[in-house]
Amino acid sequence: MTTIATRSRENTRARLLDAAAQVFAEVGLEGATVEAVCERAGFTRGAFYSNFASMDELFLTLAGSVGEARVNAVRERVQQMTESGALALDDPVALVQQVMDSAADDRLGVMLMSEIRIRALRDTEFGAAYLAGEREMVAGIARIITDIVDKECLVLRTDAEETARLLMIVWEGMTVRGAMAGADDDQLRQTGSAELGRMVSLLLEPVKPASGS
Amino acid sequence: MTTIATRSRENTRARLLDAAAQVFAEVGLEGATVEAVCERAGFTRGAFYSNFASMDELFLTLAGSVGEARVNAVRERVQQMTESGALALDDPVALVQQVMDSAADDRLGVMLMSEIRIRALRDTEFGAAYLAGEREMVAGIARIITDIVDKECLVLRTDAEETARLLMIVWEGMTVRGAMAGADDDQLRQTGSAELGRMVSLLLEPVKPASGS
Repeated sequence: MTTIATRSRENTRARLLDAAAQVFAEVGLEGATVEAVCERAGFTRGAFYSNFASMDELFLTLAGSVGEARVNAVRERVQQMTESGALALDDPVALVQQVMDSAADDRLGVMLMSEIRIRALRDTEFGAAYLAGEREMVAGIARIITDIVDKECLVLRTDAEETARLLMIVWEGMTVRGAMAGADDDQLRQTGSAELGRMVSLLLEPVKPASGS
Repeated sequence: MTTIATRSRENTRARLLDAAAQVFAEVGLEGATVEAVCERAGFTRGAFYSNFASMDELFLTLAGSVGEARVNAVRERVQQMTESGALALDDPVALVQQVMDSAADDRLGVMLMSEIRIRALRDTEFGAAYLAGEREMVAGIARIITDIVDKECLVLRTDAEETARLLMIVWEGMTVRGAMAGADDDQLRQTGSAELGRMVSLLLEPVKPASGS
């Protein structure tokens, strides 16, 4: 395949994913059919099926790209903050608020991921694929945590992967409840960050005053 | 209303709730109609509507009774263990396993609560009612925690209600993922308990060796 053909294929996939997210926002996961997505994207069913085997595959790809975008946003934000010395390690709540401000998480993302998780519960094959994607996301978060911990001489009370999994689950649980309560995008981030900040305090050993040893 | 009439009404409600849980197990929340539940319970639609205003009300009652049964089972188990001196506070993972062994949580309960939560996300009014029920459950868990902590001279690293909420969210997140992976009832409890035990360790201040002060 030439570079141009590859690029065009990437472009088609991206447009289908965008269209699916829009259709989902309007009619939910159950209403998001191949036809509706193709109409929105301006593609034929042929174009769809040469890119995705099924709507399930498209939704798993969408879930993966939402997760990847969040992890990347957090990684970049942490890097910026580390370089400018703005990483407020003595105040985990403030730290998490600063970091999560940039994570592209909103009401629609919370709804989409919840609908995808319920499908993963109902369908074992979909569930296995979802869990595989989630393990990658957890590994990505664990790497960011390890970087911060190493650089800042912090001590975790449990290993980085367990830390990452607990943070993911707490963020998910709190943002889902925020969305249930009708919170808008800003409120969602605030609720999620406040709880996540307290969770970070629990996951870190208290910083010991500097000593000679 | 006489006592017998009250008892009969309670009995009708209980049979409708049982029937709804069975129908749900077979066809899911969307397929659990008033007709299907009445047919299973052997009642008319009139009997249904003199007890519940809608299927949503029935499902909220069901969610509430599932939550209440879990909290009660945990409370009784803790009481038994406290009386027999079997509360293994030096090993939180073992402690949680002992306690959660009795909590009537299974694959069906995990599915039911997940379906109810997705409805709470889609419908704001249902969401508000669900969250009100959940706050009661969290308060119940917080009371159990306070009892143990006071009796055993433990120190929490955050307040009892926050502790209860975090434990609930972690239990939920882990059992949902267990169910996605196709775990059976026993495996679900084991996965949930292992993670919950580690979470309990994080939520407790390390026990200090006894001293004179």
